[in-house]
Amino acid sequence: MSHPLFDQHRPLLDQALQAIATRGYWAAFSENPSPKAYGEDAAEAGRAAFQAHLGKPFEIEQPGQSGWHVGEKSPYGLALDIQYPVCDPQALVQAAQQAMPAWQALGAEGRTGVCLEMLQRLNQHSFEIAHAVMMTSGQGWMMAFQAGGPHAQERGLEAVAYAWREMSFIPASSHWEKPQGKHPALVMEKHFEVVGRGVAVVIGCATFPTWNTYPGLFAALATGNPVILKPHSQVVLPAALTVRILRGVLAEQGLDPNLVTLCLPPSHAAAQSLYTHPDVHSIDYTGSNTFGHWLQNNCRQAQVYAELAGVNSIVIDSTDDYKGMLRNLAFTLSLYSGQMCTTSQALVVPAQGIDTNDGHKTYEQVCGDLAQAVDQFLAKPEVAHAVLGAIQSDDTLSRTERAAAGEMGRVILAPRTLHNPDFPQARVRTPALIACDAEHAEHFSQEQFGPISFVVRASDTPAALTLVEGLTRRHGALTLGLYSTRQATVDAAIHLSWRAKVALSINLTGGVFVNQSAAYSDFHGTGGNPAANASYADSAFVANRFRVVQRRQHVAGAQS
Amino acid sequence: MSHPLFDQHRPLLDQALQAIATRGYWAAFSENPSPKAYGEDAAEAGRAAFQAHLGKPFEIEQPGQSGWHVGEKSPYGLALDIQYPVCDPQALVQAAQQAMPAWQALGAEGRTGVCLEMLQRLNQHSFEIAHAVMMTSGQGWMMAFQAGGPHAQERGLEAVAYAWREMSFIPASSHWEKPQGKHPALVMEKHFEVVGRGVAVVIGCATFPTWNTYPGLFAALATGNPVILKPHSQVVLPAALTVRILRGVLAEQGLDPNLVTLCLPPSHAAAQSLYTHPDVHSIDYTGSNTFGHWLQNNCRQAQVYAELAGVNSIVIDSTDDYKGMLRNLAFTLSLYSGQMCTTSQALVVPAQGIDTNDGHKTYEQVCGDLAQAVDQFLAKPEVAHAVLGAIQSDDTLSRTERAAAGEMGRVILAPRTLHNPDFPQARVRTPALIACDAEHAEHFSQEQFGPISFVVRASDTPAALTLVEGLTRRHGALTLGLYSTRQATVDAAIHLSWRAKVALSINLTGGVFVNQSAAYSDFHGTGGNPAANASYADSAFVANRFRVVQRRQHVAGAQS
Repeated sequence: MSHPLFDQHRPLLDQALQAIATRGYWAAFSENPSPKAYGEDAAEAGRAAFQAHLGKPFEIEQPGQSGWHVGEKSPYGLALDIQYPVCDPQALVQAAQQAMPAWQALGAEGRTGVCLEMLQRLNQHSFEIAHAVMMTSGQGWMMAFQAGGPHAQERGLEAVAYAWREMSFIPASSHWEKPQGKHPALVMEKHFEVVGRGVAVVIGCATFPTWNTYPGLFAALATGNPVILKPHSQVVLPAALTVRILRGVLAEQGLDPNLVTLCLPPSHAAAQSLYTHPDVHSIDYTGSNTFGHWLQNNCRQAQVYAELAGVNSIVIDSTDDYKGMLRNLAFTLSLYSGQMCTTSQALVVPAQGIDTNDGHKTYEQVCGDLAQAVDQFLAKPEVAHAVLGAIQSDDTLSRTERAAAGEMGRVILAPRTLHNPDFPQARVRTPALIACDAEHAEHFSQEQFGPISFVVRASDTPAALTLVEGLTRRHGALTLGLYSTRQATVDAAIHLSWRAKVALSINLTGGVFVNQSAAYSDFHGTGGNPAANASYADSAFVANRFRVVQRRQHVAGAQS
Repeated sequence: MSHPLFDQHRPLLDQALQAIATRGYWAAFSENPSPKAYGEDAAEAGRAAFQAHLGKPFEIEQPGQSGWHVGEKSPYGLALDIQYPVCDPQALVQAAQQAMPAWQALGAEGRTGVCLEMLQRLNQHSFEIAHAVMMTSGQGWMMAFQAGGPHAQERGLEAVAYAWREMSFIPASSHWEKPQGKHPALVMEKHFEVVGRGVAVVIGCATFPTWNTYPGLFAALATGNPVILKPHSQVVLPAALTVRILRGVLAEQGLDPNLVTLCLPPSHAAAQSLYTHPDVHSIDYTGSNTFGHWLQNNCRQAQVYAELAGVNSIVIDSTDDYKGMLRNLAFTLSLYSGQMCTTSQALVVPAQGIDTNDGHKTYEQVCGDLAQAVDQFLAKPEVAHAVLGAIQSDDTLSRTERAAAGEMGRVILAPRTLHNPDFPQARVRTPALIACDAEHAEHFSQEQFGPISFVVRASDTPAALTLVEGLTRRHGALTLGLYSTRQATVDAAIHLSWRAKVALSINLTGGVFVNQSAAYSDFHGTGGNPAANASYADSAFVANRFRVVQRRQHVAGAQS
């Protein structure tokens, strides 16, 4: 049952398995967009490849095509004008099912080998994909390259490693021999087949079209399932490139490319008929609560892996590195204009202020110093544009404007509109900081996606922790931060994190940020609070995507 | 983090881990109720212990007790008259939550050690539990001992082994060091805590009150969750004994016994309020579709692991051991009067008959020979009573009477009422065999739980396979049998089993039966068809019962 691609990529797989076992730092792919890592011509070739897509139909030979999808918008104002095939979801499901038996027959080793080859191939297209991610999601270039390229690939590889580990526990066969005292033993031979659950739908989001897509995509594929990738209607190119690259690998291997298809449904009703299709057995989704809950309520035939909205918090009790804390927070709040599901929204500070290595700071001083830190960090336009990127959606833009108008509380840092000389049409906003009391929770207790954060005044640190626990348990969170020099407070936050099931970052003052999650080491989401019902990645993320079907019979010749 | 009980039971755990990895035969506990295995006095002591419960209140010191539950009925007609505490489910949930932090703090090793000790302790009570299982479920003595005692304990141990394997992959901590080129590396220390999802409810069934309960019970416990065990209202004693034994182990270990409680709710509404309680995060259930679907539709706050009704089939195409086949089927249909979720209901035979080593047999001959084989097998009263046991429920009894009256098709073997001299009030029925055509599916295509099977005439073997695939995919099945000497037919059945996701037994003519499932080796249910959404046991059965909560901080002294 071995497979050439499995043998070829085995060293990579073994390293990934080692990484998820020890959870130390490891990377399969360079996050540095350098000629040394990617080749002398890679940057220019990637840019040219991206440019070549503009204004043209993006051909994928898929069944059931009825027209072309248009309407992709670039937050940078670039005219993309790419057309994508619109296909009947029923035809895609049918084609996916036809592709499934050969994929199952390949076995766990074969599928794993092909998935690893796919990831290698995606990595070779990192520059092209990075441009696509940048221009559709609005991420800055470096983030688009890293998060959209190698970091997304690492998350995909991580999922493959988990899937392989679980599948590899299932022996292909066994010899079962039960003693019967003086009588001859009962002897059976048994075979165990890993069988995918059925068609998987992976629904992409607008802000991280590859990073939030690859875990579900590769978890489903590796465990034997065909995948229909449904991108956000305005953020298509990264998904289309991914699908084309994967289909290319499948075709090279003599496999049916329709194992992986891109779905831009012809209508809302057609999209719903895909999600509720009786042969769709899993759905991976990142996005709003409204649609996520619709999926959970209506797609009962499928296992839904959902990452939804949340309210991420930081409790600021005290610090021995005030400037480091402010620098760290300024970057966290600025990165991609807060358009990350991991960005902190509620920074909770005791009313009496905080003790720091620079002396006691009142609540108002913390507000002012944090506002100033953000301003200073974004003072240089080239830094600001690289970090902020552009605002992806109209909703985020209008939300930011409401915050700026004081509708969410007292504005302590007004969001500014910046002009990006490289992209004059880009819509760029600096973060808004709002001050409010813990009692006035109506705005900070719901996700305000984008560059909007609140410095919340709580009566004291225990009240701050209680507030944050309630927010996390009721509304969900992917991240929780704490700044404190007091061990008792740290311990209280640790216990809180267990009860509320949220990842905790303690006293980050350097080059690691609460909103960043490293593959193989950091679990992205715990799956234990309302922000996500699954984690990238763990055993639970893969184990229920396949089933084991056994058969047993007497051993020929043996008495039984 | 090691624990004395973990160290003590480590050899047992290692053997269980080896068994689930190789899936060969292994048993931790003797299935032989012999003095050699269990001690000279065990049988008599167990009988006396059982007798001592009769007619008395079964005291368990649980919170929220408001009265006593009565109404347990013995299919053997024995007056049990045991009273069990009725407790407010809200009080049990609250007590369970209070018990949870110390259980979490014990860590994976500690919890695993305590669970293994619990299983050992249950094993020492095998005779007492066997009497309880026999007298409440109506199983015959040997089955009650084996399935109710050691086999149930093996399934519990199997679940603990899976839970341990998954939890053991999570390192307690990691050192994360990311190179930064010429700059100092980013260095973090990270900690990972395995945290249970929350209160688990395990709902027992009337026929296998321990075998179908221990997997969920021990999977939930080992992964850090408190368990509220809700037995069938007429089959309580096996659960009550289990709960008392487990609470005894907890108390010995200085742990809160309310980690495991018995719930006999004061009302239907109180029961529903338990299942839908926001702090109940998992429900394990074996039973009817009606209630199972109610749980799935109404307990959206919980992960529901459900084993429901199904229609198990056997396709009889040909055989080279006709007598062996008939003997094997006669036992399968007789065992516990077909009151097993794994018993075959639809035996599908081609209209043109089958080729056998005794020559060609027409459809009618197969019907007649099978009826005769069942009759012969049950000819000796002592064999009949030992194998049949008694009919557990009124519903099964009246269903059997409807079958006997010809309401489900032509009766080719009428069920007989037997008199059990040891238990004059026992309600004993031999199996009913009904002949019908594949077109008349209204009776055989729904679960007819109990001693009712159909010999279904299909036009030919391919039609038989198609029928069975449809039954399995639409109505679910835990088992599928095939008798065929033709490799092409065997291959077709194997592929069918993959599509319909059902365990296949091929040409069983000896001492292994399609309705028996061996721990560590046979997956009970695939989790991939409507009969069950989970399997005993696999990674998926345990992996989503806990979450991992991480924390990270800079390493003291390291630059970052």
